[in-house]
Amino acid sequence: MIGKLNHVAIVVADLEAGTAIYRDTLGAKVSAPLELPEHGVVTVFVELPNTKIELLYPLGENSPIAKYLEKNPGGGVHHVCYEVDDIEAAAAKMQAAGARVLGDIKIGAHNKPVLFLHPKDFCGTLVELEQA
Amino acid sequence: MIGKLNHVAIVVADLEAGTAIYRDTLGAKVSAPLELPEHGVVTVFVELPNTKIELLYPLGENSPIAKYLEKNPGGGVHHVCYEVDDIEAAAAKMQAAGARVLGDIKIGAHNKPVLFLHPKDFCGTLVELEQA
Repeated sequence: MIGKLNHVAIVVADLEAGTAIYRDTLGAKVSAPLELPEHGVVTVFVELPNTKIELLYPLGENSPIAKYLEKNPGGGVHHVCYEVDDIEAAAAKMQAAGARVLGDIKIGAHNKPVLFLHPKDFCGTLVELEQA
Repeated sequence: MIGKLNHVAIVVADLEAGTAIYRDTLGAKVSAPLELPEHGVVTVFVELPNTKIELLYPLGENSPIAKYLEKNPGGGVHHVCYEVDDIEAAAAKMQAAGARVLGDIKIGAHNKPVLFLHPKDFCGTLVELEQA
């Protein structure tokens, strides 16, 4: 069912410093910061030849990643995102397998339908599925 | 400098269960378990169209991932691996940038030269560089 790894999301404690690490130290191509108020994050895309790294920094109150940063003050990998063809079918398959879907299908940061899966059901990893 | 994302390594608490999650629940193509005694791990490759997920489980005493599993009993993302053209040049560039290379350049699990970078210098993420 899952297709490509769409991105790996990394929460950073300092967006400018994190961007500099990927751009200057690791020599990757990075985007300008993009504010996504409806998702409570600022993101910088690190473009690799086969996939993306997304650096995430909290934006506004109630950012969904604020708690992560409290627990992990240095940042770290927040989730991995796999592509699927049909998000409704994916949700049904997950539920049939007894895996917990967190909340409802929503429109994600790329303006595509997404859902999140409980880390305890996926090897300790928060998994996002995105309809490609 | 960095090229493709070669793999995301996920430490699992139960290799059979973790393999079943990726194969059956997520519907991905997975390899048979591969024992790598010299690296202290058993690995299962999850083949995605653009990259790989590597499920890691401790093998033998002194496995380098045993401590990770003690701290994270449910497992989780252990490291991300980026490809580079020249590992010696990459090591020199990291040191010039003041980033900590952990130990020496070694031959990694894919029989290619690799090095690891300190998570505190890379947004809280353990980074492996592999000469492609």
